[in-house]
Amino acid sequence: MAHLPYSTSQTGLVYDVRMRFHVEVRPEVNQGVHPEDPRRIYAIYKELVDAGLVDDPNTVSLAPSVLARIPTRFVTKEEVCAVHSERHYDWVISLENWDNDLLHDAGQQMDSIYLSKNSPMCARLSAGGAIEACRGILNGHVKNAVAVIRPPGHHAEHDEPMGFCLFNNVPIAIKACQKEFGDKCRKVLILDWDVHHGNGVQQAFYNDPNVLYISLHVHQGGKFYPSGPAGDHLHCGEGAGLGKNINIPWRTAGMTDADYLLAFQRIVMPIAQDFDPDLVVVSAGFDAAEGDMLGKCHVSPAGYGHMTRMLMSLADGKIAVCLEGGYNLRSIAISALAVTRTLMGEPPGKIVTTVATPSAVDTVEEVLRQQAYYWPCLYPRNPSHRLKKLGSERMHDIVRDYQAAWLWENLEMSNLFIAHSKASRSFKNQVLATPNHYEARPLLVIFHDPPELTGETDPRTRELQLHNTWLTDSVKQYTQWAVDKGFAVIDINIPKHVTEPDDSHEYAAEADPQQRTDETESLAKYLWDNYIELSDSNHVFFMGVGQAYSSLIGFLKKNDRCREKLRKIIGFISDSCPLPSYKSATDDYLDRWYKDTSKIYVAADHYLWEKHKMKPPSRKWGSLQKSDYNDMQEMLAYHHKEVTGVLNAEISGWQPSDVPVVVASEVEM
Amino acid sequence: MAHLPYSTSQTGLVYDVRMRFHVEVRPEVNQGVHPEDPRRIYAIYKELVDAGLVDDPNTVSLAPSVLARIPTRFVTKEEVCAVHSERHYDWVISLENWDNDLLHDAGQQMDSIYLSKNSPMCARLSAGGAIEACRGILNGHVKNAVAVIRPPGHHAEHDEPMGFCLFNNVPIAIKACQKEFGDKCRKVLILDWDVHHGNGVQQAFYNDPNVLYISLHVHQGGKFYPSGPAGDHLHCGEGAGLGKNINIPWRTAGMTDADYLLAFQRIVMPIAQDFDPDLVVVSAGFDAAEGDMLGKCHVSPAGYGHMTRMLMSLADGKIAVCLEGGYNLRSIAISALAVTRTLMGEPPGKIVTTVATPSAVDTVEEVLRQQAYYWPCLYPRNPSHRLKKLGSERMHDIVRDYQAAWLWENLEMSNLFIAHSKASRSFKNQVLATPNHYEARPLLVIFHDPPELTGETDPRTRELQLHNTWLTDSVKQYTQWAVDKGFAVIDINIPKHVTEPDDSHEYAAEADPQQRTDETESLAKYLWDNYIELSDSNHVFFMGVGQAYSSLIGFLKKNDRCREKLRKIIGFISDSCPLPSYKSATDDYLDRWYKDTSKIYVAADHYLWEKHKMKPPSRKWGSLQKSDYNDMQEMLAYHHKEVTGVLNAEISGWQPSDVPVVVASEVEM
Repeated sequence: MAHLPYSTSQTGLVYDVRMRFHVEVRPEVNQGVHPEDPRRIYAIYKELVDAGLVDDPNTVSLAPSVLARIPTRFVTKEEVCAVHSERHYDWVISLENWDNDLLHDAGQQMDSIYLSKNSPMCARLSAGGAIEACRGILNGHVKNAVAVIRPPGHHAEHDEPMGFCLFNNVPIAIKACQKEFGDKCRKVLILDWDVHHGNGVQQAFYNDPNVLYISLHVHQGGKFYPSGPAGDHLHCGEGAGLGKNINIPWRTAGMTDADYLLAFQRIVMPIAQDFDPDLVVVSAGFDAAEGDMLGKCHVSPAGYGHMTRMLMSLADGKIAVCLEGGYNLRSIAISALAVTRTLMGEPPGKIVTTVATPSAVDTVEEVLRQQAYYWPCLYPRNPSHRLKKLGSERMHDIVRDYQAAWLWENLEMSNLFIAHSKASRSFKNQVLATPNHYEARPLLVIFHDPPELTGETDPRTRELQLHNTWLTDSVKQYTQWAVDKGFAVIDINIPKHVTEPDDSHEYAAEADPQQRTDETESLAKYLWDNYIELSDSNHVFFMGVGQAYSSLIGFLKKNDRCREKLRKIIGFISDSCPLPSYKSATDDYLDRWYKDTSKIYVAADHYLWEKHKMKPPSRKWGSLQKSDYNDMQEMLAYHHKEVTGVLNAEISGWQPSDVPVVVASEVEM
Repeated sequence: MAHLPYSTSQTGLVYDVRMRFHVEVRPEVNQGVHPEDPRRIYAIYKELVDAGLVDDPNTVSLAPSVLARIPTRFVTKEEVCAVHSERHYDWVISLENWDNDLLHDAGQQMDSIYLSKNSPMCARLSAGGAIEACRGILNGHVKNAVAVIRPPGHHAEHDEPMGFCLFNNVPIAIKACQKEFGDKCRKVLILDWDVHHGNGVQQAFYNDPNVLYISLHVHQGGKFYPSGPAGDHLHCGEGAGLGKNINIPWRTAGMTDADYLLAFQRIVMPIAQDFDPDLVVVSAGFDAAEGDMLGKCHVSPAGYGHMTRMLMSLADGKIAVCLEGGYNLRSIAISALAVTRTLMGEPPGKIVTTVATPSAVDTVEEVLRQQAYYWPCLYPRNPSHRLKKLGSERMHDIVRDYQAAWLWENLEMSNLFIAHSKASRSFKNQVLATPNHYEARPLLVIFHDPPELTGETDPRTRELQLHNTWLTDSVKQYTQWAVDKGFAVIDINIPKHVTEPDDSHEYAAEADPQQRTDETESLAKYLWDNYIELSDSNHVFFMGVGQAYSSLIGFLKKNDRCREKLRKIIGFISDSCPLPSYKSATDDYLDRWYKDTSKIYVAADHYLWEKHKMKPPSRKWGSLQKSDYNDMQEMLAYHHKEVTGVLNAEISGWQPSDVPVVVASEVEM
C-alpha cells in the first residue's frame, strides 16, 4: 500500500542453482572438501525454504511475508570491465575451453583459487546476480534484497583472481547501478563484514569519493589472509577518496557480537549517517560466525541481525546483502536466515555478549583517531600542528626532570656522564646514580620503563585537568629502599619513544621495539664497561622492569663474563611484555645459572601461563613467579617486600660498616 | 503469518476523544492557550488518519499496513496505588465533585497544574490507555503500540500532581504488566526523550533493579524545569537499583538530532543491550522537537524515527510509545507520525545534522564516566582507589615545580612569601616573582589559569603515553618578554582545584567556582597590601588570563584606590569564561576609566558577541576586542605582539637606565 511503501514491499532473493557448478576438478585427497564448497549457497537457500520464506519459484507472490525471486543473469563484458581489466575478463571467459589438467595446474599456481570449465558461467551469474539485486531495489521492485551468490568477489583484484574470487561482484554491481541510475545511486556504502579484508574492493574505489568502503576484519598485524598492510587502519583512501576507506582491523581472532556492535556504534553508524548513502551494499561473508574454522570468531545470528538492522536505517532502507565467504554450512545458513528475516522486518534476536574485548576497544579507538582526520563527526582530532605552533613541551621530559630533582634532593642521585658517541641521544638525562656508585658496596642497577601517567581527557580537545592527572612511579620505592640500605644505585629510565629534533611536536607513532631494544643493550654495555665493571662492588644486582628487562637479558647473552659480578637478576614482566629466554647451545650450565640467579615476576594473564598449563616452563625462562596482578605499577608495589627480602638475603655477608646513615625515611606500602 | 510473526503483525493505537475533556476552567486571558492544550492528542490522531494509517474505528482490520485500535479503559484504584499514595488517588477522583472556583484556585497553588471536573476521567483513561497499550503487546495482539494519551504522567510524584501531570501513566502501566505477566515482563526499559526530566518516573523506580530508566533532557545545571539536581548525571539509583537510573542532562537547549544519536550510540544502546529488557516503554514527549517553544531544541521527525528504530531492536521489538509532553501542535503531529511509521516498519528518514555539538559530546562523556561504575560494557573506570594504593602524585604539582624551576633558571624568579593565615593554602608555591619586584620599574602582575595539558588516553586504563602528552604554556612568553624588557614580574598560577590532604588521591569533582574566585580575590588583596603597594613602581600592569581575570576585577571593585597605580589591565577571556563588568552606581567616572585602561581579548565564539550583535557592549565591560580564536593558548600566542605593543607604549616615558641586560633570548612566535 502506498501509505507504507517500504513495509508493504517484499524483500528480494537472488539464487540460481547453476552457481553450484563451479567445483574443484581434482579435489585434494587429503584435504577434504575445499572450504568454498558448492553446497554453501544451497545450504542457505534450503534454510530459507525451510523457514517458509520462499514460495514456489513458478508462482508470483506479492505478500511481504515471502521473498520475491529476482532472476539472475550473465554479467556483460562491459559491466565487468568497469572494475577489471579486459585481459582478466577474457582470461576468465576462456576457462570454459581449457582441459581439466590445465585448469587444475593453473589454479594451483594462484593465490587460493580453483578453476573448472563452469567457473566462467558461475562467475558471470554471481556478478549478474549482485547487479540484479541492486537494480531490483533501485527500480522499486523490492525494498531490499539478499543475493545468495558464488563464487565470492571481494578479494578479486583489477587484473587477477584471488582468494576464491574471480569477478568482484559488489563493485561491478555498484558501477553498473551508478551508470544506470545516476543521481538516484550516486553515493554507495559498502559494509564488508566478511572476516577477511576485501582487498579487491578497497582497490576498486580507493580514490573514489562516492563509494565509502568500511571493512571489519581480522588483521593480526597483517598475518591474517590476505596478509600485508593493505587492511590496516592507516589505509584510508587517496586523492578525492581520502577518508572514504575505513578498515577496522581486529588484532586477534575470537571477536564477539559485542565487538562488532561497538564498532558499529562508535564508527560505522556515525560515519555512515554523515556520508548519507543512496544505497547500502553488504559484502556479507559469514566467516566471522560462531563455528567457522577459518574465521575463529563468535558472531551470532542475532549479531548479524543487529548489524543488518542498523544499516537498514540508512538510504531509506535500500540495502542489498551479497554473499562473500563463510565456510561452515550450518553457521552460514542460520546467519543468512537471521539477516533475511531482519530485512523482511523481524526484530533481531537478543545479544548474549555485551562487553567488548579489550583488544576490540583498542582497535576501535585506533580507527577513531585515524578517521577523525576526515570525519568531523568523530573526536578527537590530531593536534600536532597546534602543538608546534604553540611550542608545547613533551611531558616525558618534564616528568624525568621532576624525577631527577626528587632523586637528587632525597637520595643525592645525579646524572651519570654518558658519552654521546657511545649511546643514543635519547638517553640524555635518563641515567642517574648515587655518588658512591664505584665503591665496594652492593650495587643495584635498575632498567625501567617510564612511570605511568593516567588521567581523563576532554573528549573533543584531548585536554587534561592537571589536578586530575596522575603520575605513578612504583620503581621509586625500590630505589629509596636500596639507598637506605646502603646500596649504590644506578637508575636508568628507558624512554618509549626516541625524540628527534625534527619530530619534536609530532604525535609519535608506535616506537620501533627492535630499535629500542638494541639501543638499550648498547647503553647497558656502555654502563658496564665504564662504570659497573670498574666499580669495587662484587655484589651487583640487576633489576629490569617491563620491556627494558628483555634488553638486559639481550645484553647478558652477548657479554658472558658479566655473570661473575652478578648476584641476582630481578625481572618484572607485565601482560603485554615478551619474556626473554637465556640459554646457550654450547654451555649447558648457562640456563641453570640463569634459573638460580633470576627472580622474575610475571603478570597473571601473561600468555606464558596459558602455554605452560600442562608442563612447567623450562629453565631457560629463569625462575618465574606468577603475580596476582597484571598492571606493572601494582606488581611493583605488591612484590616490594618479597624482592627486598631476596636482596637482603644476598647481602647478608656484607658489612655496611662504612655507610653513612641516610635520613630519608622508608616508604611504606 | 507464523513465519514472520512480527512483521506481519499490526502496530497498536490508543486514542480516545474523551481525553480531550481535561481543560482549563478559566483560561488566563493574557497568556493565550495553555501549552498542555487538549488539541494536542487530536492533532496527532488527525495526522495519522491523514496519512491513511487509521481504518474506520468500527471495522476490524488485520492488515499490518493499518493501525490496530486498542480500546482504552479506566485505570483501577489498585493499579494507580502501585505507584501513588491512596491519598493522591482519592484526591484526583474527588475533583469531579469540586466547583469551578475551587478547581481554579487549587490548580493555581500547585506546580504547573490546571484542574477541571473532567480531569479525573481523563487521567484515568490516560493511565488505562498506557496499560492497555503494553498489555496488547505482551498478549501478542499487536507487535508494538503508540498511545496518544493525555494528561501526561512523568512529572507526577508519589503523593502529588506536578508539571501538567496527575497520574504517572508509564510507571502505572509497567507495575500492572509486571504483576500480570510475571517473567514475561520482568525487566523493563523506560526511555524518556521528553525534553524535561521525568522526576516522577525516577522516583517510582529509584531502588528497583528491574526497571531501567534512561532520560535525555535539558538540564541547564538544574535551572530547567523541573529544576533542581534530581535530573543530573549523578542520580544513578540507589540500593538494588543503583546503576538503573541514567540521566543524560544537556547543559543547554538547542540540542540536535546528532546529539541525540550520539547519546543513543554511546550510552543508550550499549547499556540497553546489556540490560536486555523484556519490554521497552518510551516516555515520548515531543517537546525536544524542532519548533517547540518550551524545549527550544531541534530534533527532527527523522531523528525520532531513528531513536525509535534503535529501540525496536531490543526486547524482540516489544515497544510501547506513550505520549508525554510536546506543545507545538504541528511539531508533535509530524514527530508522532514519523515514530508510528517506524513502528509499522518504514525506514526512518535521513538525518541532516550529523555532527554533535561540543556540549553534547561533553555531557555524553560525563555520563559515561559516571555510569562506567555500574556497567561493565562502558569505559573508562574510576581509578581513585588504585591511585591511592600506588601513591600516585598529582601532575598539577609536578608541572608547577617544573615551571618554577624554569622561571628560576631563566628569569631568576622565585617564590614570594605568602602568610598562610592570610591566603589559602592552595596558593603555596603558586606565586613567583623577580627579585626586583619592589623597585621603581614597570611591574607586570599576571594572574593566570594553569597551563594546558593534552594527550591521548588509553580508552580502557586512562593511561597516557608520556611522549605523546603535551604541556602548553603560552603565558610564559609574556613573562619572558617582560623580564627581557626590564619589567619586574609577579606570576600567579591559580589552581583549578584546591588540593586538601584528605582527598589527595581522589578524582576531584568540579571545583566550586565561587570559592576559587573568593580566594583569588583575597590573594590579590594580600599581594597588593604587602608587595605591590609598597613597591616603588608607579607603572603597574595587571594581566588576567581565563577565569582568573574575573577575580582580578572583583578585587578592583572592592579596592578602589588601587586605580591610582594601575596603568593598564590586559584580559584574556576564552569561550567558556564569564566576562566581568566594572561599574559603580555612585561613580560615573568608573566605567569610563575601566574602558580607557583595559584591553580585553574575548574568544570568537563567546556568547557576548551573540548578545551584542545589534548594539555594541557598554563601557562597563571594558575595551573589548574580538579574537579570531577560542582556545586560550592560541589566543595568548596570537595576540602576543599586540599586547606587548600596548605595554611598550605605556612605558615609553620610563628610562630603564639601571636595568641589567638579561641574557635569555626573546621567544619568537
